[in-house]
Amino acid sequence: MSDAPRVGIVMGSDSDLDVLQETARMLDALGVGYEVTVASAHRTPERTRRWVHDVVARGVRVFIAGAGGAAALPGFIASETTLPVIGVPIPSVLDGLDSLLSMAQMPKGIPVATVAIGKPGAANAGILAAQILAVGDAALAQRLVTHRAEMAREVEVRARKVQEALGHGG
Amino acid sequence: MSDAPRVGIVMGSDSDLDVLQETARMLDALGVGYEVTVASAHRTPERTRRWVHDVVARGVRVFIAGAGGAAALPGFIASETTLPVIGVPIPSVLDGLDSLLSMAQMPKGIPVATVAIGKPGAANAGILAAQILAVGDAALAQRLVTHRAEMAREVEVRARKVQEALGHGG
Amino acid sequence: MSDAPRVGIVMGSDSDLDVLQETARMLDALGVGYEVTVASAHRTPERTRRWVHDVVARGVRVFIAGAGGAAALPGFIASETTLPVIGVPIPSVLDGLDSLLSMAQMPKGIPVATVAIGKPGAANAGILAAQILAVGDAALAQRLVTHRAEMAREVEVRARKVQEALGHGG
Amino acid sequence: MSDAPRVGIVMGSDSDLDVLQETARMLDALGVGYEVTVASAHRTPERTRRWVHDVVARGVRVFIAGAGGAAALPGFIASETTLPVIGVPIPSVLDGLDSLLSMAQMPKGIPVATVAIGKPGAANAGILAAQILAVGDAALAQRLVTHRAEMAREVEVRARKVQEALGHGG
Amino acid sequence: MSDAPRVGIVMGSDSDLDVLQETARMLDALGVGYEVTVASAHRTPERTRRWVHDVVARGVRVFIAGAGGAAALPGFIASETTLPVIGVPIPSVLDGLDSLLSMAQMPKGIPVATVAIGKPGAANAGILAAQILAVGDAALAQRLVTHRAEMAREVEVRARKVQEALGHGG
Amino acid sequence: MSDAPRVGIVMGSDSDLDVLQETARMLDALGVGYEVTVASAHRTPERTRRWVHDVVARGVRVFIAGAGGAAALPGFIASETTLPVIGVPIPSVLDGLDSLLSMAQMPKGIPVATVAIGKPGAANAGILAAQILAVGDAALAQRLVTHRAEMAREVEVRARKVQEALGHGG
Amino acid sequence: MSDAPRVGIVMGSDSDLDVLQETARMLDALGVGYEVTVASAHRTPERTRRWVHDVVARGVRVFIAGAGGAAALPGFIASETTLPVIGVPIPSVLDGLDSLLSMAQMPKGIPVATVAIGKPGAANAGILAAQILAVGDAALAQRLVTHRAEMAREVEVRARKVQEALGHGG
Amino acid sequence: MSDAPRVGIVMGSDSDLDVLQETARMLDALGVGYEVTVASAHRTPERTRRWVHDVVARGVRVFIAGAGGAAALPGFIASETTLPVIGVPIPSVLDGLDSLLSMAQMPKGIPVATVAIGKPGAANAGILAAQILAVGDAALAQRLVTHRAEMAREVEVRARKVQEALGHGG
Repeated sequence: MSDAPRVGIVMGSDSDLDVLQETARMLDALGVGYEVTVASAHRTPERTRRWVHDVVARGVRVFIAGAGGAAALPGFIASETTLPVIGVPIPSVLDGLDSLLSMAQMPKGIPVATVAIGKPGAANAGILAAQILAVGDAALAQRLVTHRAEMAREVEVRARKVQEALGHGG
Repeated sequence: MSDAPRVGIVMGSDSDLDVLQETARMLDALGVGYEVTVASAHRTPERTRRWVHDVVARGVRVFIAGAGGAAALPGFIASETTLPVIGVPIPSVLDGLDSLLSMAQMPKGIPVATVAIGKPGAANAGILAAQILAVGDAALAQRLVTHRAEMAREVEVRARKVQEALGHGG
Repeated sequence: MSDAPRVGIVMGSDSDLDVLQETARMLDALGVGYEVTVASAHRTPERTRRWVHDVVARGVRVFIAGAGGAAALPGFIASETTLPVIGVPIPSVLDGLDSLLSMAQMPKGIPVATVAIGKPGAANAGILAAQILAVGDAALAQRLVTHRAEMAREVEVRARKVQEALGHGG
Repeated sequence: MSDAPRVGIVMGSDSDLDVLQETARMLDALGVGYEVTVASAHRTPERTRRWVHDVVARGVRVFIAGAGGAAALPGFIASETTLPVIGVPIPSVLDGLDSLLSMAQMPKGIPVATVAIGKPGAANAGILAAQILAVGDAALAQRLVTHRAEMAREVEVRARKVQEALGHGG
Repeated sequence: MSDAPRVGIVMGSDSDLDVLQETARMLDALGVGYEVTVASAHRTPERTRRWVHDVVARGVRVFIAGAGGAAALPGFIASETTLPVIGVPIPSVLDGLDSLLSMAQMPKGIPVATVAIGKPGAANAGILAAQILAVGDAALAQRLVTHRAEMAREVEVRARKVQEALGHGG
Repeated sequence: MSDAPRVGIVMGSDSDLDVLQETARMLDALGVGYEVTVASAHRTPERTRRWVHDVVARGVRVFIAGAGGAAALPGFIASETTLPVIGVPIPSVLDGLDSLLSMAQMPKGIPVATVAIGKPGAANAGILAAQILAVGDAALAQRLVTHRAEMAREVEVRARKVQEALGHGG
Repeated sequence: MSDAPRVGIVMGSDSDLDVLQETARMLDALGVGYEVTVASAHRTPERTRRWVHDVVARGVRVFIAGAGGAAALPGFIASETTLPVIGVPIPSVLDGLDSLLSMAQMPKGIPVATVAIGKPGAANAGILAAQILAVGDAALAQRLVTHRAEMAREVEVRARKVQEALGHGG
Repeated sequence: MSDAPRVGIVMGSDSDLDVLQETARMLDALGVGYEVTVASAHRTPERTRRWVHDVVARGVRVFIAGAGGAAALPGFIASETTLPVIGVPIPSVLDGLDSLLSMAQMPKGIPVATVAIGKPGAANAGILAAQILAVGDAALAQRLVTHRAEMAREVEVRARKVQEALGHGG
């Protein structure tokens, strides 16, 4: 159900793929097309800049950047475009707190939309990108409503499982 | 230059106004209309829910929620809508770290786009909201590009000021 | 020895069951009846609200809510009732510090009685709920005294074990 | 409107009075009687123990203990009674984070119901004590419902103030 | 080479034995006698008090207390005696940071000599106790000097090992 | 009432004097003689080493070292002597947390007896030094008991003050 | 005594000048020439890149970059050059901890030599830059030795001041 | 390709070798000679001092010191020389945060060039040492440029790998 690439996903290292696969899965589920690459703000700044401008030319309208440690990647991309940029902190030796602060604490003028550390954040980055695109795409907005309802139903299934495990609940 | 309300700004307490005024100023500067209220996820959940649905009916397409401490407000709003929600952590006794974590660390399924603690974050929330709306609004996208260029020129002015103060620089 | 449900236990996800089983065991040991469910402040707000009001109607007088990350669940419940609400932080990527702050740092007006992160806190949530109910239940108050004395005896057993292991002590 | 002492308030130092006065005010507002003292787990353990048993004999059913730094006071009281004990972290050089952890992270067996750092927590400690007593006191339960409604009305007043200040809102 | 008990070692739980065995080993190596027990400031305050006064009567002159979480044990002992008390933070869910703060941040009047988290701290607690006793015990002071020299020699052995592994060094 | 110097007090900078004056006052109150200097582990290592050996020759038996930031001073002194060394963390930009960790987290073999950050810790360093010397000095031990009793009486005075301020208490 | 510019100092905002003036003063004192500018990794990436390459062409051999919050500036410069880059964290709402982590936690391949938060770090950045240049400049190396000796003498002056204030010391 | 020793690598314990091997590998790859030893600021201060002066006499011009916990080693070395000193924080119970602060937060006058915690930092310490030496060594400067280009090529290889894994990207 994926359409043409509207989201650009970039990670600082291929070791971040395990986390950012959650983003890809969520965008697949929501029917939002994306491009993905590895690029480093620090090791390949020129390549990263070029990629940003290339994918914008190909139709990308939202960026998702995952990085760990001194996670400059989403801010770097945000400095190259005025499109919305979402940052996914990747946990490493300090459990992602360094990465979270490196993304969230951006200076006045250049926002990064920071989500949760690790896999929950990676999945949410996909949803947030879809929410942004859905402001101008009623079909996608409808798919987000459907996805929300499915999550709610899943909670009810899990509630029954827990009530059976403990033997308590109405 | 403001148009009809497209952004809903909500703060947990009127003591947050000092910070969130930066959001209002930025949206004014970018020509994006907004509505503003005080509503608490904890003290007035019903009022908050009603406000979300009312302003969506009036055309709001992005939310900005500022709160301190156990800052549940942006997550509360995100649970009531599939529109994008931006969270602004407000510093209090722990300098806003509690508030930042309460916003950023949302569970899988319900993202909050978290920005920096305090006034820089409040200004950036305004820019991020504009970036989101600009995905489908070419005139606003152009105003964002202009605003970015103005910021760059301001840095050059400040560079000269610093070079004069220290008497060094090319 | 459990009586009719007087405690409502709710967890944000069925993956929290491993921790909150400690609560259930403690309430079983203290002869306090309870109901349990899975409900999310963020994914199923309406279901959570309904559950709160339903179990209050069935006799629940204290709530225990466990959640991880941006742990809004106990505060959400506290916003729907004036009954006492106990929060159990569940550790995840940041070891539960985010969850602890999201519960403890509630704004003026809506308290959450926060206990320790993880299993020790989950067991203590059961004791605290029993202590609250015991203010008006002399038999339960007596069972708490007995439980306290049993813990003290267990410490003595462990003291002997350690003294034997090290071969030192009076 | 205060009735006979049902809450025992204790602080580690008279310098904590500024914070714990919020507790006293809230209990006054809710019509809950209390006794108050200064006692230190570390400097006057014997005095503290005696006070706990004395006030229980005089009818106290809930304790509120405020302390800063290595805030052992609420845990000390909880070790002397099976009545509910509420802990209020008082900010000092580390902004109260040390105090919060010293209260919340109690070992299995002896809970402390920890609330927010400083004045918001002190006020909430009063509400939580009232909620606990209200489980067996319908009149007090009703006063808590009224207090909640008053808070909600106050939020609406503040919303209007903010809307007037910014000139935006419905 | 151990003499009569001069150090009292106490741990909050037998699960702390793995860490505090380092203390016992160090005291054995330095020829300092000790008694050991399990006692909890929170679960068995009366037993803990009694033990403090009993072992002082039997000749103990320094205390070492290990505990995790809201680690009140060393402060509790320090409130019962004016002899020196050493605290060993035991790591649990927050890696011992909570325990470290609960020991180090004691209020004015009642010091706890806090050492490092976990096994290095447990060994150092033994050395520190010996250093305290050695102020009035020249033979023990000499054994501490010898132990220090042995450590220095061990570093040289390790230096050669590392130089061989890397093939570099003078 | 001060006797010959038995405690060596050293601070990393004269700006630490405001905090370490609390140590001097406490030692004066307890009748314990001391020497004081400014010496830096980093800026004057040779001077610091010489001072350690000089004051030991003049009778010093316990060291108290206060420092901020990367507070290497107490560990530096502990590396030059096997006498007990007490560390007082001095708050600076990170509120003393860096200094606390730089002292408490010493490696196996070289303990530093770390006390609280700032003035409460500085006063406690004086008490702890006195407690260490009192192991072999019955008159000093008695003065510590008297000091403890005075503190307890002071708490009672403060309790009355608070009870009068609030008009509650038995 | 300053020679031709060999150090490039850059700050993210002119509000950082108060801190980075310490760097300029230290370089002046050590006779090391420098250029200074304001440039932002996020607001003016192109200007920042151009400045790096321009000043290298004019003889700069070491960079010093000061920034607060998500402090990407030193890493940005390090990605544009293989010359040594020193980072000075500037304190803001989180006391500079975010800035410290954003600089120190650089990924493998692109180091930033991070110094202390705020003014002490800014002065040290100047010394470190001089130390780097002194590897190939014997006269500068000699000036560093002289500066070190002056610092040591200043400590002795301060020691006398403290000893006079307290009336203790040899 | 290694030349004569120009870098002195020192670790506080042979258990740090696993991390500092990354430094050795990087210096090997860049053709920079080094000496390595184990020496402790705390356990073998005299040996450490001697080693510093010995290796300087043999031609070392930059130091790299790795240590965990209260990581005084790089500061200790910096107090013995005016050559540049690089600090590598080694993670232990607090994930290296204590070590990072013990290195970065050095007082005014004695800088330590602090890099990232653990292996990425150890590798970067090698690069930074090479960058420092390359200021006066054009051949080494050229090898750094080549190494940077190799890293960039490696990122492109990884980008292709990720794009193949996900099946998306240009």
